[in-house]
Amino acid sequence: MRIAIDAMGGDHAPEATVQGAVLAAKEWSDTEIILVGDETKIKAFLTEQPPNMKIVHATEMIEPDDEPVKAVRRKKDSSMVVAGRLVKQREADAFISAGNTGALMTTALLIVGRMKGIERPALAPMIPTVDGAGVLALDLGANMDATPEQLVQYAIMGSIYRNIVHGVAKPRIGLLNVGTEAMKGNELTKAAYPLLEQAHIHFIGNVESRDILQAKCDVIVCDGFAGNIMLKSIEGAASTIFSALKTEFTKSWLTKIAALIVKPGLSQFKNKMDYAEHGAAPLLGVDGLVMKSHGSSNAVAVKNAVRQARIAVQNDLVRSISAEISNGSEM
Amino acid sequence: MRIAIDAMGGDHAPEATVQGAVLAAKEWSDTEIILVGDETKIKAFLTEQPPNMKIVHATEMIEPDDEPVKAVRRKKDSSMVVAGRLVKQREADAFISAGNTGALMTTALLIVGRMKGIERPALAPMIPTVDGAGVLALDLGANMDATPEQLVQYAIMGSIYRNIVHGVAKPRIGLLNVGTEAMKGNELTKAAYPLLEQAHIHFIGNVESRDILQAKCDVIVCDGFAGNIMLKSIEGAASTIFSALKTEFTKSWLTKIAALIVKPGLSQFKNKMDYAEHGAAPLLGVDGLVMKSHGSSNAVAVKNAVRQARIAVQNDLVRSISAEISNGSEM
Repeated sequence: MRIAIDAMGGDHAPEATVQGAVLAAKEWSDTEIILVGDETKIKAFLTEQPPNMKIVHATEMIEPDDEPVKAVRRKKDSSMVVAGRLVKQREADAFISAGNTGALMTTALLIVGRMKGIERPALAPMIPTVDGAGVLALDLGANMDATPEQLVQYAIMGSIYRNIVHGVAKPRIGLLNVGTEAMKGNELTKAAYPLLEQAHIHFIGNVESRDILQAKCDVIVCDGFAGNIMLKSIEGAASTIFSALKTEFTKSWLTKIAALIVKPGLSQFKNKMDYAEHGAAPLLGVDGLVMKSHGSSNAVAVKNAVRQARIAVQNDLVRSISAEISNGSEM
Repeated sequence: MRIAIDAMGGDHAPEATVQGAVLAAKEWSDTEIILVGDETKIKAFLTEQPPNMKIVHATEMIEPDDEPVKAVRRKKDSSMVVAGRLVKQREADAFISAGNTGALMTTALLIVGRMKGIERPALAPMIPTVDGAGVLALDLGANMDATPEQLVQYAIMGSIYRNIVHGVAKPRIGLLNVGTEAMKGNELTKAAYPLLEQAHIHFIGNVESRDILQAKCDVIVCDGFAGNIMLKSIEGAASTIFSALKTEFTKSWLTKIAALIVKPGLSQFKNKMDYAEHGAAPLLGVDGLVMKSHGSSNAVAVKNAVRQARIAVQNDLVRSISAEISNGSEM
């Protein structure tokens, strides 16, 4: 198995990506790790090169602020585009990047290509939940608008991913909505509901955004706009509350003592709810495995992304999705 | 001034509504308070009847689970419908209900009637913010889908409400979106953006849902679906975090002591962020003043809703909106 890593993508690249790649190569000797990027810069952080690691040189890199489509079209020798090309040409089974999300989605679409039968690939991160299991949410940003049929494709892809990569036997699929009754929602969700009922998935109906963190489902399906609003609302509320807590805890020496007492438990909870800790997000519906790891990924996060990619490749995720989608379209 | 109160609506009705009505009547002797509902039940909680209070008997009531349109059509003598009729016939200047939200919106539309030039009235609650000022959000549930033109009407109505009722000199209007750049978003927000730029409002551009609690704007405009997702995501995150805090604080005698130390400050923060504390939500775009107070309203909340209604009536809110809307449509 060969997994390419965009060495230049992410806030801590190439240091974190190189170190993470070394950790991964050492852990899984059956996997070839391909570091794609500026060879000189990579080697500066490469104290040792495991035998199952190789470097593919790329002269350019896509910056976080680059306009995605323009960047992918023009920077043909960027680490991200070169890594995408390795997947396209079947020289790598997967590629992972912590770089510019928009550019990664564009690379997936323009370089790797869409899976046959899929209208729109979707970005599917895990939203952390109280019980630690998490909810796979898609689409979270690849496409702002969606059709009812696209939501059904998201549901099928998410279901297969949770089953194959996370071992969930019969993933519960929920439709993000404003109420639990079948007829609730906007035009999109009302049209998608009966289609989801007919699909080959375990559809459990509408799920409200206030119940997401309680893990009422394993996969939540939504258009990219609603998904983004949900995720960023949760993030904003959490960061507001945690900063209020901090203010409260630093008010006096007495509250500082109180803080010391509850800090270990609170930190544990905070980490559990930190979505950066929940691994890389697959781009589902692409004709190859592309994974987005968090921009702030450290070496361990990079290694964990490789772990996820390995499971997906070993279990033939892409082919499984493709089979189910073409199966559905023949109905 | 005459303000009608749906005595039968809300979790604590009629006790809380009657008591709140008495408080209001005593506080504002220039205002006639009209309690609408079952006279016997109202009188059971009426220990004293101020001279500026009267009761209008209504034999029926709309239940929380009633299907809105059906209930409003069939229960013609329900407290909510009768109160709506008082406004329609100009026998009351405003009416307040803590009852079934859907039924209240239906009453506003079918009984009181839409304002001329308004396509869709909008429900506009305040979302509490860290600084205590709050953000008026609309639409939050009256209409799931919206057109770009409707979003502009929401913006105009919200701007006038903030100005007239809250005294905000030049309300900052934000468009709920997934990024701050002008071209971000879905088809709806992309089409609405240039229209909002041209409207007679202080449009400050896109605002992300993660920044709402930081009070980046005074009014946030969105379709009812996105607004609901935002609000319920914030609520869900807050309730999840506060219940985790509770678990943490009750782990041992030591953490219980820590809890005692920070409790006053945390309760203060929690109350500040409790949207039930932020008064009633107007239904803007109706040809008369209709206000929704929170289902769990106690007597003080009912009185506070009357306070808001008084300010709106005194400052001619409905006519101001109507003038601006017809002004805009002549452009």
